[in-house]
Amino acid sequence: MNFNEELRDIKNYSAGKPIELVVREFGIDAKDVIKLASNENPYGSSPKVIDALKQICNKIHLYPDDSMYKLKEGLSKRFGVLDSNIIIGAGSDQILEFIVRAKSNKNSKVLMAKTTFAMYEIYAKAVGTKILKTISDTHNLDEFLEIYNNEKDIKIIFLCLPNNPLGESIEKNKVYKFLENIDNDTLVVIDGAYQEYAAFKDKDMKINPSDIIKKFPNTIYLGTFSKAYGLGGMRVGYGIAQNDIISTLMKLRPPFNITTLSLEAAVEALKDGAFVQNSIKNNFLQMKRYEKFASDLNINFIPSYTNFITFLLKNDKNSTCIADSLLKKGIIIRDLKTYGLNAVRITVGTKEENSKFFSIFSIIYNAG
Amino acid sequence: MNFNEELRDIKNYSAGKPIELVVREFGIDAKDVIKLASNENPYGSSPKVIDALKQICNKIHLYPDDSMYKLKEGLSKRFGVLDSNIIIGAGSDQILEFIVRAKSNKNSKVLMAKTTFAMYEIYAKAVGTKILKTISDTHNLDEFLEIYNNEKDIKIIFLCLPNNPLGESIEKNKVYKFLENIDNDTLVVIDGAYQEYAAFKDKDMKINPSDIIKKFPNTIYLGTFSKAYGLGGMRVGYGIAQNDIISTLMKLRPPFNITTLSLEAAVEALKDGAFVQNSIKNNFLQMKRYEKFASDLNINFIPSYTNFITFLLKNDKNSTCIADSLLKKGIIIRDLKTYGLNAVRITVGTKEENSKFFSIFSIIYNAG
Repeated sequence: MNFNEELRDIKNYSAGKPIELVVREFGIDAKDVIKLASNENPYGSSPKVIDALKQICNKIHLYPDDSMYKLKEGLSKRFGVLDSNIIIGAGSDQILEFIVRAKSNKNSKVLMAKTTFAMYEIYAKAVGTKILKTISDTHNLDEFLEIYNNEKDIKIIFLCLPNNPLGESIEKNKVYKFLENIDNDTLVVIDGAYQEYAAFKDKDMKINPSDIIKKFPNTIYLGTFSKAYGLGGMRVGYGIAQNDIISTLMKLRPPFNITTLSLEAAVEALKDGAFVQNSIKNNFLQMKRYEKFASDLNINFIPSYTNFITFLLKNDKNSTCIADSLLKKGIIIRDLKTYGLNAVRITVGTKEENSKFFSIFSIIYNAG
Repeated sequence: MNFNEELRDIKNYSAGKPIELVVREFGIDAKDVIKLASNENPYGSSPKVIDALKQICNKIHLYPDDSMYKLKEGLSKRFGVLDSNIIIGAGSDQILEFIVRAKSNKNSKVLMAKTTFAMYEIYAKAVGTKILKTISDTHNLDEFLEIYNNEKDIKIIFLCLPNNPLGESIEKNKVYKFLENIDNDTLVVIDGAYQEYAAFKDKDMKINPSDIIKKFPNTIYLGTFSKAYGLGGMRVGYGIAQNDIISTLMKLRPPFNITTLSLEAAVEALKDGAFVQNSIKNNFLQMKRYEKFASDLNINFIPSYTNFITFLLKNDKNSTCIADSLLKKGIIIRDLKTYGLNAVRITVGTKEENSKFFSIFSIIYNAG
């Protein structure tokens, strides 16, 4: 059977391996597997969320409130924007998909950093858009601007701040200066999936959604409940933008794109700010151990504004071999070879998980 | 800001009103609201599913197993097909979206019954495909074939069996005869969202996925956990087709399109066949009451192979007024005016819910 030609070259996203797979493939007991591969919150999720879900497990036969009244109410209070400035997606991923489908096509181009969140490229390819990337792996706004000025028909610019999978971020003032040079009809995506972490580490990195969309009506801010809020498995993200952008993206939103339990989880998670702040505080305490660990082994790393850290390996080490050896010991991390880098990305885990990682990684690294 | 032109005419799906909205708008206590609008299973979901979910509520920070190993294993056993013949979607809706985006575009056409599941048209419009419909409201395969033979470039045919929102179905033998006339490069979607009900009521209506995809490699069968399995709020559906179709649709599947809890719920729901069969048995016992009720009031109805019934109102009654009046009394049903019909669709509820519906509907109907 023939299909639309733009699908021909699409490769699927390669997700972090789930614990179940390691159990199945290597026969390791699930309780001995440590997953430091998908930047989930190692402290789980708020106990208040878990309690709330247990209360409504008997309502799962009912479709969710498709207006998402309560969640939009919570987000609009949190961010000081109107309901009409908010769209909810099955993860911020889904909003990325709406954006690409609404704003770009075979005749247009999108611009992103060389090494950034893989879904930008995957969604763009699915609509046949031309993909432009900077030369530098991490975000370099001068390069973004040079490409933008030299090319026509760039309809979307993706800024991942902080950037996944590398961890760097950019100060708000520099982002604002950059945005002054961008045309009104180019949509700039500020992907803030890890913004809670960046804002905690350095307030100059903090990007305020209501402020940025007011100053630059051609921006959309994306946030997620998958990281600091501890709801990776529930698939809830949000987009904040001016009404004309939101109302258009809403046309591509399928009904009931959030499950009944996911909606409840997100509403409750928003209320437990203490859990989020504690998770982030612990994250950066543990991050210090990773930085010292890397320095001790003479491994280069990118200072991270997130809940993961990227080790850039030297030529005599192979990221794929190291990740595979760790996997056989029940430790799942992310090999960045698929991004063209001899590097590994490690989610910062709990104190115990990190200690185990350090001891096993050292042995493998020194042997390899 | 400018967006892709094909979005201009898209109207959003109008979902059944949730109980929360009726509570908010009319100040009716949630326990007094009866929702007979979205064809959810009125008997809830299997207690085994609910127990299983409570056990893993503390895992919601973890992304789901994106290979969906266990669920595919369960479905492949159930239907006698390979893992590679199965795709899982956030509801079968999402698979419809993949199908439309993979197989049709601005230069092609899709064919469907005049009055059928609204998402076929909404997804098709989003890619700018030309939409062709039969003249008859219910499925008439002679009309389908006539249009198919007279038109070029029909890339997708949607058969909703049984049909939502009207309730009719078509015997397997007639479907097979129809399929013999369809070209290999036209994808025929057999939307079996309510097939469990049809198969129970009349075995001649039963369409077996493994059989149909073997005989007709240009078909895809869609099933859902939202109806008979009682998981409307969890958003899990599946598609069964030959490998070339599935592997192409998989390119459009976003990673983690099913939540961690939804995956678990579907796996457990598949195991509790007794719950499903009981729900269906009770459904048709209650359906008899609706048929008698309609006959007594001299209301025409379409014999239904589903868990809902459609009342076709005479000209002196107005479906919108009746639905609105019921809403104010806390009973949510579906007005079919948006489908161009002076009709209402009522989900068959529990015995108590139906009794309450009969008594309130009678008063409103006789007064209106």
